[in-house]
Amino acid sequence: MSDAIEIAEKLIAAPSVTPATGLVFDVLEEMLAPLGFEVHRMTRGDGTTGSDEAPVENLFAIRQGPAGSKHFAFAGHLDVVPPGNGWTSAPFAPERCGDLLYGRGAVDMKGAIACMVEAARHVPQDAGTISFIITGDEEGPALHGTRALIDFMRAEGHQPDLCLVGEPTSVNRLGDMMKIGRRGSVNIWLEVAGVQGHVAYPHLADNPVPKLVAMLAELDALVLDEGTDWFQPSNLEITDLEVGNPAHNVIPEKAKARLSIRFNDRHSGASLSELVAAIARKHGGSALPIVSGEPFLTPPGTFSQIIADAVLAETGIIPEPSTTGGTSDARFLRSVCPVIEFGLCNATMHKRDEAVAMADLETLSRIYARIAQAALDS
Amino acid sequence: MSDAIEIAEKLIAAPSVTPATGLVFDVLEEMLAPLGFEVHRMTRGDGTTGSDEAPVENLFAIRQGPAGSKHFAFAGHLDVVPPGNGWTSAPFAPERCGDLLYGRGAVDMKGAIACMVEAARHVPQDAGTISFIITGDEEGPALHGTRALIDFMRAEGHQPDLCLVGEPTSVNRLGDMMKIGRRGSVNIWLEVAGVQGHVAYPHLADNPVPKLVAMLAELDALVLDEGTDWFQPSNLEITDLEVGNPAHNVIPEKAKARLSIRFNDRHSGASLSELVAAIARKHGGSALPIVSGEPFLTPPGTFSQIIADAVLAETGIIPEPSTTGGTSDARFLRSVCPVIEFGLCNATMHKRDEAVAMADLETLSRIYARIAQAALDS
Ligand SMILES: [Zn+2]
Ligand SMILES: [Zn+2]
Repeated sequence: MSDAIEIAEKLIAAPSVTPATGLVFDVLEEMLAPLGFEVHRMTRGDGTTGSDEAPVENLFAIRQGPAGSKHFAFAGHLDVVPPGNGWTSAPFAPERCGDLLYGRGAVDMKGAIACMVEAARHVPQDAGTISFIITGDEEGPALHGTRALIDFMRAEGHQPDLCLVGEPTSVNRLGDMMKIGRRGSVNIWLEVAGVQGHVAYPHLADNPVPKLVAMLAELDALVLDEGTDWFQPSNLEITDLEVGNPAHNVIPEKAKARLSIRFNDRHSGASLSELVAAIARKHGGSALPIVSGEPFLTPPGTFSQIIADAVLAETGIIPEPSTTGGTSDARFLRSVCPVIEFGLCNATMHKRDEAVAMADLETLSRIYARIAQAALDS
Repeated sequence: MSDAIEIAEKLIAAPSVTPATGLVFDVLEEMLAPLGFEVHRMTRGDGTTGSDEAPVENLFAIRQGPAGSKHFAFAGHLDVVPPGNGWTSAPFAPERCGDLLYGRGAVDMKGAIACMVEAARHVPQDAGTISFIITGDEEGPALHGTRALIDFMRAEGHQPDLCLVGEPTSVNRLGDMMKIGRRGSVNIWLEVAGVQGHVAYPHLADNPVPKLVAMLAELDALVLDEGTDWFQPSNLEITDLEVGNPAHNVIPEKAKARLSIRFNDRHSGASLSELVAAIARKHGGSALPIVSGEPFLTPPGTFSQIIADAVLAETGIIPEPSTTGGTSDARFLRSVCPVIEFGLCNATMHKRDEAVAMADLETLSRIYARIAQAALDS
């Protein structure tokens, strides 16, 4: 019988750069099936959606509890970001060294998925229904990942009561932080059209650059909000400028910029898109927004308390409820049920020599088991 | 014996996109030698100057007048801009159609050089010294063109008293405008360095774009001057923006822009470079200027009066003394002697179906002869 460390090693040993398919899902299925889980695997996306996205594999596994029992879901992703160069050991050959287990995905988040499996083993089936919502595309475009799993669950009538996402939310030590929310994210492409001409005859041209500069100055000066009880202030960054004019003597005909806004629940992707578009129009330009995620918040309450109690019991510390950081698939799962993220220490995520303390895998397995048990009892 | 129209046809028939070499200079030499001109041809530049510039051919021709006589110089260029597509006739096959002669260079400025040759034929050698300062690179980088000719003249002790550049300065009809000056030109590359980071963690990054935007807003609001008696106000255009950041979630580490300033004689390339650099530094950036020409002014006086008298005598109109438009090789010749530009109508210059009225070639030949004669007599 394997423990969380051995399961993590098996998952890491199956290379699964986004989008993950095949072997790594086979490994997970082989772990879950003996525990009484009914495993559904589904591949979605065929590369025809305008991007060069490859097909995405996903897995939904469920172990039914007694009729009328609660349903608790573990969620996560088996895909990993590319390892990059310079690793001390091979990134897809898990290696124990001292207290640490090295390998791509050790903390983000094959290690956490191993702990979920180990936790499920320790929660009796009659405590209630447990499911695994596992995608192969969280680090990529995420068009055919968790969203497809949610569609499947809805179609099959599987409705969790609470969902825990195993992202690496701990900062300095296991248990010090959970994410009760995430900011939303919208990217906006700005463009101003002008009339090309020669710099010696500016009255015959219409330079779009000063208009873009004035637009960006106004956008940069915006105070979107002062933050909320649970969220940082919303933040706007200008991430790109482009004119692409190689001719020194030519007034260009077009000027472009791109914004990225991370925003709290005072806003929506649509409200910010309209705000920016109005400023763009005022300066003679246009704005094309792409909302990549709305904000979510599971306000402190029963679920966060269940997690805090479990963490305190196993580590002696109380996790801080936070909403900082980037987006995660919780942005999709929020539409299903209350969702909170809690997992391993994130210091080495997405870096070379990604590693997890083996003791943390054992502790997190026990924390996850306590959370699942308490969620089903709640 | 050929007239200006035939000479123009011969010059046009020798393709000479910048940098001009070979045949087109042979044609000119064959015209000038029989008129008593001593012809010096020189090729400069070998492509080692950091650009991909090809070698440049130049021609200096001189017909010495009596000892102690004055020296009047005609200046111009035999290179032409690329013809582009869509011509009605072949751009390097001169074609007479109605009143017009078509061909690349008809007005800018093989036509004018033909008129200079024709004019020289009609000014007696004992009136004084006449020279031709003709480059094959005026439309290009101009590193090894007129500057090399000036070096040669200095080395050989040839010092003109007045110089006429045959650029197409006329606007609506031949004779309506001469250029007594040109604005200077400086291009300035601006850069702000920051610290790259993730848009979700802006406190760990330092976005250079808002600093560049603030810098550009301040530069765009500058009033450099209100113009002078002879010059338009100096003008600053932002001609390029560049960040080059494809990653939507990344705060970039560098932001760049480029300015082009056309300026009058209230400024110098150095004074404007320092002004812009100070503003750039104030916003945490840096500025790299490249001055491509200082302004020049030959204030209205004897020389402009000689030209005005000649134009009036042949056309009945008085040319307006102007300083508008782009730079020309007068920016270099100003260091040699007073210089004014006067030539054909510029409506079709640098365009497809470039054409000159054949009657204008005959009139301009007579104007040029009057100017040379009067300059030598002055
Ligand atoms: Zn992750
Ligand atoms: Zn020209």
